[in-house]
Amino acid sequence: MTTTATSPLTEPNPLGARVFNFSAGPAVLPEEVLETARQDLWNIGGSGVGVLEHSHRGPVISRILEEAEADCRALAGIGEDHAVLFLQGGASLQFAMVPMSFLGADQTADYLDTGSWTNKAITEAKQLGTVNVAFDGSRSSYDHVPGDDELALSDGAAYSYYCDNNTISGTEFPRPPATGSPLVCDASSNIFSRPLDVSRHVLIFAGAQKNLGPAGCTLVIIRKDFLERTRDGLPSMLDYRQHAEKGSRLNTPPVFAIYVMGLVFKWIRRQGGVEALATLNREKARIVYDAIDDSGGFYRPVARADSRSNMNVTFRSPSEALDEKFVEKAKERDLVGLKGHRSVGGLRASIYNAFPRAGCEALASFMREFAAKDRD
Amino acid sequence: MTTTATSPLTEPNPLGARVFNFSAGPAVLPEEVLETARQDLWNIGGSGVGVLEHSHRGPVISRILEEAEADCRALAGIGEDHAVLFLQGGASLQFAMVPMSFLGADQTADYLDTGSWTNKAITEAKQLGTVNVAFDGSRSSYDHVPGDDELALSDGAAYSYYCDNNTISGTEFPRPPATGSPLVCDASSNIFSRPLDVSRHVLIFAGAQKNLGPAGCTLVIIRKDFLERTRDGLPSMLDYRQHAEKGSRLNTPPVFAIYVMGLVFKWIRRQGGVEALATLNREKARIVYDAIDDSGGFYRPVARADSRSNMNVTFRSPSEALDEKFVEKAKERDLVGLKGHRSVGGLRASIYNAFPRAGCEALASFMREFAAKDRD
Repeated sequence: MTTTATSPLTEPNPLGARVFNFSAGPAVLPEEVLETARQDLWNIGGSGVGVLEHSHRGPVISRILEEAEADCRALAGIGEDHAVLFLQGGASLQFAMVPMSFLGADQTADYLDTGSWTNKAITEAKQLGTVNVAFDGSRSSYDHVPGDDELALSDGAAYSYYCDNNTISGTEFPRPPATGSPLVCDASSNIFSRPLDVSRHVLIFAGAQKNLGPAGCTLVIIRKDFLERTRDGLPSMLDYRQHAEKGSRLNTPPVFAIYVMGLVFKWIRRQGGVEALATLNREKARIVYDAIDDSGGFYRPVARADSRSNMNVTFRSPSEALDEKFVEKAKERDLVGLKGHRSVGGLRASIYNAFPRAGCEALASFMREFAAKDRD
Repeated sequence: MTTTATSPLTEPNPLGARVFNFSAGPAVLPEEVLETARQDLWNIGGSGVGVLEHSHRGPVISRILEEAEADCRALAGIGEDHAVLFLQGGASLQFAMVPMSFLGADQTADYLDTGSWTNKAITEAKQLGTVNVAFDGSRSSYDHVPGDDELALSDGAAYSYYCDNNTISGTEFPRPPATGSPLVCDASSNIFSRPLDVSRHVLIFAGAQKNLGPAGCTLVIIRKDFLERTRDGLPSMLDYRQHAEKGSRLNTPPVFAIYVMGLVFKWIRRQGGVEALATLNREKARIVYDAIDDSGGFYRPVARADSRSNMNVTFRSPSEALDEKFVEKAKERDLVGLKGHRSVGGLRASIYNAFPRAGCEALASFMREFAAKDRD
């Protein structure tokens, strides 16, 4: 369907060198994917029409949607028990759709608060029903994700909700929490960075713009028997059931974002799947964490060792002034996007699936040099 | 900010010829816009990072958002009385957000039913409040838009709602209806194809994928004093007020769709603005309507003469079999996307802003030839 990535148009690329982009999202995409997209924007599959300009019900886009779903299922081992949906509105709309659909008037939902994103989800859910905060991470400045013994779960919760990777503090669940009730996961920032136990979840959602593609599409993986519990009478566009019945074409879907996501799925498969990426991601993260741990206390990690994220490495230099200098000097070496989230400051290296290992090595090397210089 | 469209990369374009694409949406985009996007996908403005990969809060995307809003305001003469928003969810989500926000429990909204899209809007609104169908176009098979004397308006309606151009039957309002109550317009399929009287409306929305850009973004132009009437307690992502407060960055916006829309706004300005496009669009449509009217009854128009759309020209040949043959033979001449909407059949030529005049001439010439051959 799509053209290959080996056109003489793009190799060597006269559009200038690209830098190492540590942005937390929207984030770096595989260059092979960009090269294919650049060609298909003009004319996809010899159709004489670009990918943005095809009817979403015609054969070209139908095939893109089918392949994206099939590749997603193959990557994560998703069987017929779960539906795969491509929606709009980002994770933020999921924050509302989940309680709107599944939190009945006489029910409680358990939420594990591990940072800013779960906090927003809790705010939305509280407007719509009863929430039990089963773990309050703010008490420890969100420096870790809870062990199962730290959870104060309610009896017979409608569902329990967690965020698998927390981009701001840089924490990540080593495994899904054991909650007993139907498990809902915000996997926006680490989906397909490692194997995902779909069977343990009733609903997994992920905004595309970190590990999957461009902003503007949300992947939703939802167990079909749970889907059937969707409350009646919701507006069509907020009704998972209607989206599932129409195969994500209840209205015009965000075609380009799904298309790029589909290319990323194929790219992940070519890398050896999520298992191979998991190994690589652990190595990449270790390169940066080692630079923190070997700095003799110059760099201080934000996350507790047992909760460290392989996607977002968060740390601080000895002072805010040095943090700023670090960001500036790194930029001179084409290492960009290293500023911590505006809500917490510090430094952050986001190293999602598409971020190259060479970039982690370049960062670690710069970190050592920066620390040594500052000590002089 | 963006690179120019004159790179040796793309001229002459070795990716093959493009066809005349009459798709009703997603639809053809200006080739200059595609050429710019192809380059910026790899590296925008010499930043070393592609447009999909930049943080939505960084300087590159901030400038894109600011320029898109400024160019939109300049095109439509939008002053400070109105907010300009870039949202997700398509026009279909607007069908729900409008009544959810502005239709109180004790109020009625007037809806002008001119086809499938208003029908869907009415269905969503009826779930949320009281609807008066002020014009029922189904009685005349949606062959025309109502004159003001055909409207059965309610007293003190919360708002009245119409769809300015109807893609399926190919009808278009010559001017906004005179309803008295605050006027809401679905302008998805003709926005910026002609001057738009923003001051007469409290809310205008348009899905991007016909006249503005790729699928995945909805432009909303909303009067600020009306915005203030938004009902309290809505989920954040469904709250116009919150989107306005955050300058369309309540969460990660659909960056690429907004970016392309911004390029299209600049392209429209280079064409001489909406006035110049309106003249061109009238000429383009007349070329095709003339081929219908001069066919001695071979082609039958769907829309009544006083309601003809300049965006979607709908017609039928003498039989369904000939309609099919028409579509097939046209395709051989690189005229694609001429099949009528699946719900009504027949033939349809969608000729939005970016569709070239030469394509209308090629179609008209083919239509004459096809009719003559079939008569032989």
